[in-house]
Amino acid sequence: MRSHVVFVVLSSVALVPVTTRPAWAQVPSLEDILTLSPESDWRSIDPENALYVELPGGRVIIELSPDFSPQHVANVRALARADFWENAAVVRVQDNYVTQWGVPDGDIRDRGAAVAEITAAEFDRATGDLPFTPLPDPDAYAVATGFTHGLPVGRDGQGRTWMLHCYGVVGVARGNPPDSGDGSALYVVIGQSPRHLDRNVAMIGRVVQGVDLLSSLPRGTGSLGFYETPAERLPIRSIRLAADVPPGERTELEVLRTDTPTFQAVIESRRFRRESWFVQPAGRINVCNVPLPVRAGAR
Amino acid sequence: MRSHVVFVVLSSVALVPVTTRPAWAQVPSLEDILTLSPESDWRSIDPENALYVELPGGRVIIELSPDFSPQHVANVRALARADFWENAAVVRVQDNYVTQWGVPDGDIRDRGAAVAEITAAEFDRATGDLPFTPLPDPDAYAVATGFTHGLPVGRDGQGRTWMLHCYGVVGVARGNPPDSGDGSALYVVIGQSPRHLDRNVAMIGRVVQGVDLLSSLPRGTGSLGFYETPAERLPIRSIRLAADVPPGERTELEVLRTDTPTFQAVIESRRFRRESWFVQPAGRINVCNVPLPVRAGAR
Repeated sequence: MRSHVVFVVLSSVALVPVTTRPAWAQVPSLEDILTLSPESDWRSIDPENALYVELPGGRVIIELSPDFSPQHVANVRALARADFWENAAVVRVQDNYVTQWGVPDGDIRDRGAAVAEITAAEFDRATGDLPFTPLPDPDAYAVATGFTHGLPVGRDGQGRTWMLHCYGVVGVARGNPPDSGDGSALYVVIGQSPRHLDRNVAMIGRVVQGVDLLSSLPRGTGSLGFYETPAERLPIRSIRLAADVPPGERTELEVLRTDTPTFQAVIESRRFRRESWFVQPAGRINVCNVPLPVRAGAR
Repeated sequence: MRSHVVFVVLSSVALVPVTTRPAWAQVPSLEDILTLSPESDWRSIDPENALYVELPGGRVIIELSPDFSPQHVANVRALARADFWENAAVVRVQDNYVTQWGVPDGDIRDRGAAVAEITAAEFDRATGDLPFTPLPDPDAYAVATGFTHGLPVGRDGQGRTWMLHCYGVVGVARGNPPDSGDGSALYVVIGQSPRHLDRNVAMIGRVVQGVDLLSSLPRGTGSLGFYETPAERLPIRSIRLAADVPPGERTELEVLRTDTPTFQAVIESRRFRRESWFVQPAGRINVCNVPLPVRAGAR
């Protein structure tokens, strides 16, 4: 077939003489930016913050972020260590929204997990002295958007910061009472960013590997995308912290630091797309369209 | 399991006495807005504009919109009528981006389809007197965003209008030359809206039924998400216009008109979420988060 693609392969751009291209096209490609980045702009993931969700199709890795919901993240760690998620399953896949998993017939209170009482909803937090790499472009929902410790965040200009519902971000499902999310049921965003959920849910981190294993599942036909029969659920083999997995079985990943010149260059390379495929580069970007680079780390 | 959900079922809201709720929660629910809407706020889909893509899992229906790319839409109709897509297949699924289909081993020039030469890229158009329901909230990419004839659109304030890359919108894949998209290969957005593609592609419409059949497919492992082997491709049984399908085999759908008070109420119901689950309704919305209601029509 003819090579109709939505954008060209990056490497083919090198065939176009740079001197014939407009000024915005002179910026380095994303591939070059990452290849040429200094080692110090990357960090490995703390094994205490890497949650491995083992699916039949492979390993999903979530980087937990205690910055935004320390009590909920501590609960998730405790639940993993108590084997609370034995017999867990994906129970809900709602198209263009979320995939959710938990223990279908269990209750956190029945499992004897060493979980602490959660005393705060943790939907946002004091900005304090958190690092912040702002975006220059406007956002429908937040006064300011940008990145803090590798995550997309919003700010209200009045001292509050929160993690945003972008693709791949993981939150704590809850019922109607704001404090009813204990960490036993989690969800990941698999569609257009549902930003109306921001500041309404405790967010624990983001998927850094394998989100496609959760986004490509059959959609549930029940209310809110819940699977209607147990047979439809996808069994989860285990949910463990990397720290509790033998070193030889871990997946070593490195994440680009978002308070670096390299990440600034990544943002600009996505705001102004240099590939010759583009006839009208946007020159602007939404916070949920900025990639957060991850690469294989050293073993 | 305990009923941890990301938002409550709409009907459960009725249990909360209205008098105890704040002002923003007094607006009608989305369900009520649609149930109480006048018949005149809905329209049926012209059979000349309904493209049926028959997959093993069911029928995907695309409403073609000649407003934005009349030449490309005419080409798509001609290709459907020439059976150009016999032996077509889904050839590419890139996570958080697009699903693309076409004829893997064919070429539009070999098929003898009565297609016209495309003489314009049709990436945007003169605003003219198109109806426009604007959104009040800012957007990262466009000076103004809103809805025209049931589709999300952007405007530049200088007389140009274009269709936006929101979830479910369908575009014409092309190679590097801007005029290389002939309509033979199409793609649908299946992730966070890739708005950097706006004004770089001819857009032909949006999926009004069955987008989940295209978004839940296994992701391709080749470059740009192309399937690496023919066996991975999903065969497409046929691609036809509803007008060419016997009336008894058609799917009758009705689409909410976007230049109506009902649609204005839909927008407000999504900007201010009234369900008691929300502790902090956003009070704002992004154009790609506004639902475009579709319902079963009369037979």
